[in-house]
Amino acid sequence: MKNTDAEIIASCPLFKGITVEEVVELFDRVPYTTKSYHKESLLMIRGDEYDSLKILLKGEVSAEIQDYSGKTIKIENLKAPEAMATGILFADDNTLPVTLVAQSEIHLISIPKSSIIEIAQKNKHFLLNYLSDSGNKVVFLAEKIRLFKFKSLRQKFTGYILSLSGKQHSDNVTLPYTREKLAELFGVARPSLSRVCSEMSDKGLVELDGKTVTILDKESLEESLDY
Amino acid sequence: MKNTDAEIIASCPLFKGITVEEVVELFDRVPYTTKSYHKESLLMIRGDEYDSLKILLKGEVSAEIQDYSGKTIKIENLKAPEAMATGILFADDNTLPVTLVAQSEIHLISIPKSSIIEIAQKNKHFLLNYLSDSGNKVVFLAEKIRLFKFKSLRQKFTGYILSLSGKQHSDNVTLPYTREKLAELFGVARPSLSRVCSEMSDKGLVELDGKTVTILDKESLEESLDY
Repeated sequence: MKNTDAEIIASCPLFKGITVEEVVELFDRVPYTTKSYHKESLLMIRGDEYDSLKILLKGEVSAEIQDYSGKTIKIENLKAPEAMATGILFADDNTLPVTLVAQSEIHLISIPKSSIIEIAQKNKHFLLNYLSDSGNKVVFLAEKIRLFKFKSLRQKFTGYILSLSGKQHSDNVTLPYTREKLAELFGVARPSLSRVCSEMSDKGLVELDGKTVTILDKESLEESLDY
Repeated sequence: MKNTDAEIIASCPLFKGITVEEVVELFDRVPYTTKSYHKESLLMIRGDEYDSLKILLKGEVSAEIQDYSGKTIKIENLKAPEAMATGILFADDNTLPVTLVAQSEIHLISIPKSSIIEIAQKNKHFLLNYLSDSGNKVVFLAEKIRLFKFKSLRQKFTGYILSLSGKQHSDNVTLPYTREKLAELFGVARPSLSRVCSEMSDKGLVELDGKTVTILDKESLEESLDY
Protein backbone atom coordinates (compact mmCIF):
# COMPACT_ATOMS: atom_id res chain seq x y z
CA MET A 1 0.00 0.00 0.00
CA LYS A 2 1.22 3.49 -0.87
CA ASN A 3 2.10 5.55 2.18
CA THR A 4 -0.07 8.44 1.00
CA ASP A 5 -3.09 6.10 0.86
CA ALA A 6 -2.28 4.69 4.31
CA GLU A 7 -2.14 8.21 5.74
CA ILE A 8 -5.61 9.05 4.43
CA ILE A 9 -7.01 5.74 5.68
CA ALA A 10 -5.53 6.37 9.13
CA SER A 11 -7.44 9.70 9.20
CA CYS A 12 -10.77 7.97 8.47
CA PRO A 13 -12.96 7.73 11.61
CA LEU A 14 -13.13 3.93 11.26
CA PHE A 15 -9.35 3.82 11.81
CA LYS A 16 -9.26 6.20 14.80
CA GLY A 17 -6.53 5.18 17.22
CA ILE A 18 -4.60 3.25 14.55
CA THR A 19 -1.23 4.55 13.33
CA VAL A 20 -0.20 4.82 9.67
CA GLU A 21 2.33 2.00 10.23
CA GLU A 22 -0.40 -0.22 11.65
CA VAL A 23 -2.65 0.58 8.66
CA VAL A 24 0.15 -0.49 6.28
CA GLU A 25 0.64 -3.69 8.27
CA LEU A 26 -3.11 -4.50 8.38
CA PHE A 27 -3.50 -4.05 4.62
CA ASP A 28 -0.36 -6.06 3.91
CA ARG A 29 -2.24 -9.19 4.84
CA VAL A 30 -5.72 -8.73 3.37
CA PRO A 31 -7.00 -8.39 -0.21
CA TYR A 32 -8.22 -4.96 -1.33
CA THR A 33 -8.25 -2.86 -4.51
CA THR A 34 -7.89 0.84 -5.24
CA LYS A 35 -9.49 2.60 -8.18
CA SER A 36 -9.76 6.07 -9.69
CA TYR A 37 -12.76 7.60 -11.47
CA HIS A 38 -13.26 10.69 -13.57
CA LYS A 39 -15.74 13.38 -12.60
CA GLU A 40 -19.35 12.38 -13.34
CA SER A 41 -18.56 8.65 -13.49
CA LEU A 42 -21.11 6.27 -12.00
CA LEU A 43 -19.35 4.42 -9.18
CA MET A 44 -22.29 2.19 -8.35
CA ILE A 45 -25.92 2.05 -9.38
CA ARG A 46 -28.97 1.78 -7.13
CA GLY A 47 -29.71 -1.91 -6.63
CA ASP A 48 -26.05 -3.00 -6.98
CA GLU A 49 -24.83 -5.43 -4.38
CA TYR A 50 -22.57 -3.65 -1.90
CA ASP A 51 -20.11 -6.32 -0.77
CA SER A 52 -16.89 -4.32 -0.44
CA LEU A 53 -16.49 -1.33 1.84
CA LYS A 54 -15.54 1.73 -0.18
CA ILE A 55 -13.54 4.46 1.50
CA LEU A 56 -13.03 7.69 -0.40
CA LEU A 57 -9.33 8.58 -0.48
CA LYS A 58 -9.78 11.63 -2.72
CA GLY A 59 -12.69 13.67 -3.99
CA GLU A 60 -16.41 13.87 -3.45
CA VAL A 61 -19.29 11.56 -4.32
CA SER A 62 -23.01 12.25 -4.36
CA ALA A 63 -25.66 9.70 -3.45
CA GLU A 64 -28.65 10.12 -5.77
CA ILE A 65 -32.00 8.57 -6.54
CA GLN A 66 -34.41 9.12 -9.40
CA ASP A 67 -38.05 9.67 -8.58
CA TYR A 68 -40.81 8.15 -10.72
CA SER A 69 -40.83 11.04 -13.15
CA GLY A 70 -37.12 10.43 -13.78
CA LYS A 71 -36.01 13.51 -11.83
CA THR A 72 -32.68 13.11 -10.01
CA ILE A 73 -32.73 13.84 -6.28
CA LYS A 74 -29.45 14.28 -4.45
CA ILE A 75 -29.61 12.59 -1.04
CA GLU A 76 -26.20 13.46 0.36
CA ASN A 77 -22.59 14.24 -0.46
CA LEU A 78 -19.71 12.15 0.80
CA LYS A 79 -16.16 13.44 1.05
CA ALA A 80 -12.76 11.83 1.53
CA PRO A 81 -11.84 10.18 3.92
CA GLU A 82 -15.40 8.97 4.49
CA ALA A 83 -16.38 5.30 4.42
CA MET A 84 -19.54 4.66 2.42
CA ALA A 85 -22.58 2.64 3.56
CA THR A 86 -20.94 0.92 6.55
CA GLY A 87 -24.34 -0.41 7.67
CA ILE A 88 -25.49 -1.79 4.32
CA LEU A 89 -22.26 -3.80 3.94
CA PHE A 90 -23.38 -6.27 6.62
CA ALA A 91 -27.16 -6.07 6.19
CA ASP A 92 -29.02 -9.12 4.87
CA ASP A 93 -30.30 -6.90 2.06
CA ASN A 94 -27.00 -5.36 1.00
CA THR A 95 -28.24 -3.72 -2.19
CA LEU A 96 -27.50 -0.04 -2.53
CA PRO A 97 -30.57 2.25 -2.21
CA VAL A 98 -28.79 5.07 -4.08
CA THR A 99 -26.65 5.66 -7.14
CA LEU A 100 -23.13 6.95 -6.43
CA VAL A 101 -21.84 9.63 -8.81
CA ALA A 102 -18.34 11.15 -8.80
CA GLN A 103 -18.54 14.90 -8.23
CA SER A 104 -14.80 15.33 -8.90
CA GLU A 105 -11.78 13.17 -9.67
CA ILE A 106 -12.15 10.21 -7.30
CA HIS A 107 -9.69 7.82 -5.77
CA LEU A 108 -11.04 5.09 -3.52
CA ILE A 109 -10.15 1.87 -1.80
CA SER A 110 -12.50 -1.09 -1.99
CA ILE A 111 -12.14 -3.59 0.86
CA PRO A 112 -14.06 -6.90 0.59
CA LYS A 113 -16.34 -7.80 3.49
CA SER A 114 -14.08 -10.73 4.36
CA SER A 115 -11.10 -8.37 4.66
CA ILE A 116 -13.11 -6.07 6.94
CA ILE A 117 -13.87 -9.08 9.17
CA GLU A 118 -10.18 -10.02 9.24
CA ILE A 119 -9.14 -6.48 10.14
CA ALA A 120 -11.82 -6.33 12.85
CA GLN A 121 -10.62 -9.58 14.37
CA LYS A 122 -7.00 -8.44 14.34
CA ASN A 123 -7.44 -4.86 15.51
CA LYS A 124 -9.56 -3.99 18.52
CA HIS A 125 -9.64 -0.24 17.68
CA PHE A 126 -11.09 -0.94 14.26
CA LEU A 127 -13.69 -3.34 15.68
CA LEU A 128 -14.80 -0.82 18.30
CA ASN A 129 -14.88 2.00 15.73
CA TYR A 130 -16.99 -0.05 13.34
CA LEU A 131 -19.45 -1.06 16.06
CA SER A 132 -19.66 2.55 17.31
CA ASP A 133 -20.27 3.80 13.78
CA SER A 134 -23.23 1.42 13.37
CA GLY A 135 -24.47 2.01 16.91
CA ASN A 136 -24.38 5.79 16.42
CA LYS A 137 -26.36 5.44 13.20
CA VAL A 138 -29.01 3.29 14.88
CA VAL A 139 -29.36 5.78 17.77
CA PHE A 140 -29.49 8.78 15.40
CA LEU A 141 -32.10 7.27 13.06
CA ALA A 142 -34.28 6.00 15.94
CA GLU A 143 -34.23 9.49 17.48
CA LYS A 144 -35.09 11.04 14.10
CA ILE A 145 -38.12 8.73 13.88
CA ARG A 146 -39.23 9.60 17.42
CA LEU A 147 -39.16 13.29 16.44
CA PHE A 148 -41.45 12.78 13.45
CA LYS A 149 -44.45 13.04 15.75
CA PHE A 150 -43.71 16.75 16.18
CA LYS A 151 -44.93 18.94 13.36
CA SER A 152 -42.97 22.18 13.51
CA LEU A 153 -39.23 22.56 13.87
CA ARG A 154 -39.80 24.43 17.11
CA GLN A 155 -41.76 21.49 18.53
CA LYS A 156 -39.09 19.08 17.36
CA PHE A 157 -36.37 21.06 19.09
CA THR A 158 -38.51 21.45 22.23
CA GLY A 159 -39.44 17.76 22.31
CA TYR A 160 -35.82 16.84 21.80
CA ILE A 161 -34.36 18.94 24.62
CA LEU A 162 -37.16 17.89 27.01
CA SER A 163 -36.41 14.26 26.16
CA LEU A 164 -32.67 14.82 26.73
CA SER A 165 -33.50 16.56 29.99
CA GLY A 166 -35.48 13.49 31.06
CA LYS A 167 -32.63 11.18 30.10
CA GLN A 168 -29.92 13.36 31.66
CA HIS A 169 -32.00 14.07 34.78
CA SER A 170 -31.13 17.77 34.56
CA ASP A 171 -32.38 21.10 33.21
CA ASN A 172 -28.86 21.69 31.96
CA VAL A 173 -28.89 19.61 28.82
CA THR A 174 -25.79 18.61 26.88
CA LEU A 175 -26.45 18.25 23.16
CA PRO A 176 -24.72 15.14 21.84
CA TYR A 177 -24.47 16.49 18.28
CA THR A 178 -22.98 19.41 16.38
CA ARG A 179 -25.41 22.03 15.03
CA GLU A 180 -24.95 20.52 11.57
CA LYS A 181 -25.86 17.03 12.77
CA LEU A 182 -28.79 18.44 14.77
CA ALA A 183 -30.17 20.09 11.64
CA GLU A 184 -29.93 16.71 9.91
CA LEU A 185 -31.73 15.09 12.87
CA PHE A 186 -34.61 17.55 12.50
CA GLY A 187 -34.55 17.30 8.71
CA VAL A 188 -33.99 21.05 8.17
CA ALA A 189 -31.30 23.37 6.88
CA ARG A 190 -28.88 24.76 9.45
CA PRO A 191 -30.00 28.41 9.19
CA SER A 192 -33.60 27.39 10.01
CA LEU A 193 -32.40 25.67 13.16
CA SER A 194 -30.34 28.70 14.17
CA ARG A 195 -33.37 30.96 13.70
CA VAL A 196 -35.58 28.78 15.91
CA CYS A 197 -32.83 28.60 18.56
CA SER A 198 -32.56 32.41 18.59
CA GLU A 199 -36.33 32.86 18.83
CA MET A 200 -36.61 30.49 21.77
CA SER A 201 -33.69 32.13 23.49
CA ASP A 202 -35.18 35.62 22.89
CA LYS A 203 -38.43 34.49 24.47
CA GLY A 204 -36.59 33.38 27.60
CA LEU A 205 -37.53 29.73 27.16
CA VAL A 206 -33.99 28.42 26.96
CA GLU A 207 -30.42 29.65 27.19
CA LEU A 208 -27.98 28.35 24.61
CA ASP A 209 -24.24 28.16 25.08
CA GLY A 210 -22.35 25.95 22.65
CA LYS A 211 -23.46 22.38 23.24
CA THR A 212 -25.28 23.27 26.47
CA VAL A 213 -28.96 24.16 26.60
CA THR A 214 -30.40 25.43 29.87
CA ILE A 215 -34.14 24.99 30.20
CA LEU A 216 -35.52 28.20 31.74
CA ASP A 217 -39.29 27.81 31.36
CA LYS A 218 -40.15 24.10 31.34
CA GLU A 219 -43.89 24.64 31.73
CA SER A 220 -44.23 26.81 28.61
CA LEU A 221 -42.07 24.40 26.66
CA GLU A 222 -44.22 21.43 27.65
CA GLU A 223 -47.41 23.30 26.81
CA SER A 224 -46.10 24.21 23.37
CA LEU A 225 -45.96 20.52 22.46
CA ASP A 226 -49.74 19.96 22.79
CA TYR A 227 -49.83 16.65 20.98
CA MET B 1 -22.06 -21.56 32.70
CA LYS B 2 -25.10 -23.75 33.15
CA ASN B 3 -25.87 -25.87 30.12
CA THR B 4 -29.49 -24.71 30.08
CA ASP B 5 -28.31 -21.08 29.83
CA ALA B 6 -25.82 -21.98 27.09
CA GLU B 7 -28.59 -23.65 25.10
CA ILE B 8 -30.75 -20.54 25.22
CA ILE B 9 -27.82 -18.29 24.29
CA ALA B 10 -27.00 -20.55 21.33
CA SER B 11 -30.58 -20.01 20.11
CA CYS B 12 -30.21 -16.20 20.21
CA PRO B 13 -29.81 -14.72 16.68
CA LEU B 14 -26.48 -13.14 17.72
CA PHE B 15 -25.07 -16.66 18.26
CA LYS B 16 -26.40 -18.16 15.02
CA GLY B 17 -23.98 -20.78 13.68
CA ILE B 18 -22.37 -21.31 17.09
CA THR B 19 -22.87 -24.63 18.92
CA VAL B 20 -23.83 -24.97 22.60
CA GLU B 21 -20.34 -26.36 23.32
CA GLU B 22 -18.73 -23.33 21.65
CA VAL B 23 -20.96 -21.00 23.70
CA VAL B 24 -19.81 -22.71 26.91
CA GLU B 25 -16.19 -22.39 25.78
CA LEU B 26 -16.55 -18.70 24.81
CA PHE B 27 -18.12 -17.78 28.17
CA ASP B 28 -15.53 -19.79 30.08
CA ARG B 29 -12.98 -17.13 29.29
CA VAL B 30 -14.86 -13.82 29.64
CA PRO B 31 -16.56 -12.09 32.60
CA TYR B 32 -20.36 -11.99 32.64
CA THR B 33 -23.16 -12.12 35.21
CA THR B 34 -26.63 -13.63 35.28
CA LYS B 35 -29.53 -12.26 37.25
CA SER B 36 -33.20 -12.94 37.95
CA TYR B 37 -35.98 -10.40 38.48
CA HIS B 38 -39.54 -10.67 39.72
CA LYS B 39 -42.48 -9.54 37.60
CA GLU B 40 -42.85 -5.73 37.53
CA SER B 41 -39.25 -5.09 38.60
CA LEU B 42 -37.44 -2.21 36.95
CA LEU B 43 -34.44 -3.67 35.12
CA MET B 44 -33.06 -0.35 33.97
CA ILE B 45 -34.30 3.22 33.96
CA ARG B 46 -34.36 5.67 31.05
CA GLY B 47 -31.07 7.57 31.10
CA ASP B 48 -29.08 4.69 32.63
CA GLU B 49 -25.78 3.94 30.99
CA TYR B 50 -26.04 0.76 28.95
CA ASP B 51 -22.55 -0.75 29.07
CA SER B 52 -23.31 -4.47 29.28
CA LEU B 53 -25.29 -6.34 26.67
CA LYS B 54 -28.34 -7.93 28.23
CA ILE B 55 -29.78 -11.08 26.67
CA LEU B 56 -33.10 -12.33 27.97
CA LEU B 57 -32.82 -16.00 28.90
CA LYS B 58 -36.36 -16.29 30.26
CA GLY B 59 -39.45 -14.10 30.30
CA GLU B 60 -40.60 -10.88 28.72
CA VAL B 61 -39.59 -7.24 29.18
CA SER B 62 -41.35 -4.09 28.08
CA ALA B 63 -39.57 -0.92 26.97
CA GLU B 64 -41.50 2.11 28.23
CA ILE B 65 -41.30 5.88 28.33
CA GLN B 66 -43.32 8.41 30.25
CA ASP B 67 -44.70 11.39 28.37
CA TYR B 68 -44.74 14.87 29.89
CA SER B 69 -48.03 14.30 31.65
CA GLY B 70 -46.55 11.26 33.38
CA LYS B 71 -48.50 8.77 31.25
CA THR B 72 -46.62 5.52 30.53
CA ILE B 73 -46.27 4.59 26.87
CA LYS B 74 -45.18 1.07 25.95
CA ILE B 75 -42.74 1.16 23.04
CA GLU B 76 -42.11 -2.53 22.51
CA ASN B 77 -41.98 -5.95 24.13
CA LEU B 78 -38.84 -8.06 24.15
CA LYS B 79 -38.90 -11.82 24.63
CA ALA B 80 -36.25 -14.43 25.43
CA PRO B 81 -33.82 -15.15 23.76
CA GLU B 82 -33.62 -11.57 22.46
CA ALA B 83 -30.58 -9.34 22.98
CA MET B 84 -31.52 -5.82 24.12
CA ALA B 85 -30.27 -2.55 22.61
CA THR B 86 -27.39 -4.01 20.58
CA GLY B 87 -26.89 -0.64 18.84
CA ILE B 88 -26.89 1.55 21.92
CA LEU B 89 -24.20 -0.59 23.58
CA PHE B 90 -21.53 0.79 21.22
CA ALA B 91 -22.97 4.25 20.54
CA ASP B 92 -21.12 7.31 21.86
CA ASP B 93 -24.30 8.21 23.71
CA ASN B 94 -25.01 4.84 25.33
CA THR B 95 -27.75 6.01 27.67
CA LEU B 96 -30.99 4.07 27.46
CA PRO B 97 -33.91 6.00 25.88
CA VAL B 98 -36.46 3.74 27.59
CA THR B 99 -37.20 2.15 30.96
CA LEU B 100 -37.13 -1.66 31.01
CA VAL B 101 -39.84 -3.35 33.08
CA ALA B 102 -40.16 -7.10 33.74
CA GLN B 103 -43.50 -8.38 32.42
CA SER B 104 -42.96 -11.81 34.01
CA GLU B 105 -40.30 -13.65 35.98
CA ILE B 106 -37.06 -12.71 34.23
CA HIS B 107 -33.70 -14.40 33.92
CA LEU B 108 -31.00 -12.62 31.95
CA ILE B 109 -27.30 -12.59 31.21
CA SER B 110 -25.36 -9.33 31.32
CA ILE B 111 -22.19 -9.31 29.21
CA PRO B 112 -19.82 -6.34 29.61
CA LYS B 113 -18.88 -4.48 26.41
CA SER B 114 -15.27 -5.65 26.79
CA SER B 115 -16.44 -9.28 26.87
CA ILE B 116 -18.52 -8.71 23.72
CA ILE B 117 -15.40 -7.38 22.01
CA GLU B 118 -13.40 -10.43 23.14
CA ILE B 119 -16.08 -12.82 21.89
CA ALA B 120 -16.27 -10.94 18.57
CA GLN B 121 -12.52 -11.17 18.10
CA LYS B 122 -12.49 -14.89 18.88
CA ASN B 123 -15.56 -15.99 16.98
CA LYS B 124 -16.18 -14.94 13.38
CA HIS B 125 -19.83 -16.06 13.44
CA PHE B 126 -20.59 -13.82 16.40
CA LEU B 127 -18.79 -10.87 14.81
CA LEU B 128 -20.70 -11.26 11.55
CA ASN B 129 -24.01 -11.70 13.40
CA TYR B 130 -23.43 -8.57 15.46
CA LEU B 131 -22.50 -6.50 12.41
CA SER B 132 -25.51 -7.85 10.48
CA ASP B 133 -27.80 -7.05 13.38
CA SER B 134 -26.64 -3.41 13.41
CA GLY B 135 -26.58 -3.19 9.62
CA ASN B 136 -30.13 -4.54 9.37
CA LYS B 137 -31.30 -1.97 11.91
CA VAL B 138 -29.66 0.90 10.00
CA VAL B 139 -31.24 -0.23 6.71
CA PHE B 140 -34.66 -0.73 8.31
CA LEU B 141 -34.72 2.65 10.08
CA ALA B 142 -33.41 4.52 7.01
CA GLU B 143 -36.15 2.94 4.90
CA LYS B 144 -38.76 3.83 7.52
CA ILE B 145 -37.62 7.46 7.34
CA ARG B 146 -37.77 7.48 3.53
CA LEU B 147 -41.38 6.28 3.74
CA PHE B 148 -42.45 9.13 6.04
CA LYS B 149 -42.95 11.34 2.99
CA PHE B 150 -45.98 9.24 2.06
CA LYS B 151 -49.15 10.11 3.93
CA SER B 152 -51.48 7.13 3.70
CA LEU B 153 -50.59 3.51 4.33
CA ARG B 154 -51.56 2.75 0.77
CA GLN B 155 -49.09 5.32 -0.54
CA LYS B 156 -46.41 3.96 1.77
CA PHE B 157 -46.93 0.44 0.49
CA THR B 158 -47.06 1.65 -3.11
CA GLY B 159 -43.94 3.80 -2.71
CA TYR B 160 -42.14 0.93 -1.08
CA ILE B 161 -42.85 -1.70 -3.72
CA LEU B 162 -42.07 0.75 -6.54
CA SER B 163 -38.78 1.53 -4.82
CA LEU B 164 -38.01 -2.19 -4.43
CA SER B 165 -38.94 -2.69 -8.08
CA GLY B 166 -36.43 0.02 -9.02
CA LYS B 167 -33.74 -1.59 -6.89
CA GLN B 168 -34.48 -5.14 -8.03
CA HIS B 169 -34.89 -4.08 -11.69
CA SER B 170 -38.05 -6.17 -11.96
CA ASP B 171 -41.85 -5.96 -11.70
CA ASN B 172 -41.69 -9.15 -9.66
CA VAL B 173 -40.66 -7.75 -6.32
CA THR B 174 -39.37 -9.87 -3.44
CA LEU B 175 -40.27 -8.41 -0.04
CA PRO B 176 -37.25 -8.61 2.30
CA TYR B 177 -39.42 -8.64 5.45
CA THR B 178 -42.17 -10.69 7.08
CA ARG B 179 -45.66 -9.14 7.15
CA GLU B 180 -45.12 -8.34 10.84
CA LYS B 181 -41.87 -6.49 10.15
CA LEU B 182 -43.47 -4.72 7.16
CA ALA B 183 -46.27 -3.44 9.41
CA GLU B 184 -43.58 -2.10 11.78
CA LEU B 185 -41.82 -0.46 8.82
CA PHE B 186 -45.03 1.37 7.87
CA GLY B 187 -45.84 2.12 11.51
CA VAL B 188 -49.23 0.38 11.43
CA ALA B 189 -50.91 -2.66 12.92
CA ARG B 190 -50.74 -5.85 10.89
CA PRO B 191 -54.49 -6.10 10.12
CA SER B 192 -54.40 -2.59 8.56
CA LEU B 193 -51.59 -3.68 6.25
CA SER B 194 -53.46 -6.85 5.29
CA ARG B 195 -56.56 -4.80 4.45
CA VAL B 196 -54.62 -2.44 2.18
CA CYS B 197 -52.90 -5.38 0.48
CA SER B 198 -56.29 -7.01 -0.19
CA GLU B 199 -57.77 -3.78 -1.56
CA MET B 200 -54.86 -3.24 -3.94
CA SER B 201 -55.01 -6.83 -5.06
CA ASP B 202 -58.82 -6.63 -5.61
CA LYS B 203 -58.34 -3.55 -7.78
CA GLY B 204 -55.88 -5.43 -9.98
CA LEU B 205 -52.96 -3.16 -9.11
CA VAL B 206 -50.74 -5.90 -7.70
CA GLU B 207 -50.75 -9.64 -7.18
CA LEU B 208 -49.55 -10.90 -3.81
CA ASP B 209 -48.13 -14.34 -3.18
CA GLY B 210 -46.23 -14.80 0.07
CA LYS B 211 -43.13 -12.62 -0.11
CA THR B 212 -43.58 -11.92 -3.83
CA VAL B 213 -45.46 -8.89 -5.13
CA THR B 214 -46.13 -8.66 -8.85
CA ILE B 215 -46.76 -5.16 -10.11
CA LEU B 216 -49.67 -5.34 -12.57
CA ASP B 217 -50.54 -1.69 -13.18
CA LYS B 218 -47.42 0.43 -12.68
CA GLU B 219 -48.94 3.57 -14.18
CA SER B 220 -51.89 3.70 -11.77
CA LEU B 221 -49.57 2.98 -8.84
CA GLU B 222 -47.23 5.82 -9.82
CA GLU B 223 -50.15 8.22 -10.28
CA SER B 224 -51.52 7.37 -6.83
CA LEU B 225 -48.35 8.75 -5.22
CA ASP B 226 -48.86 12.32 -6.48
CA TYR B 227 -46.46 13.91 -4.02
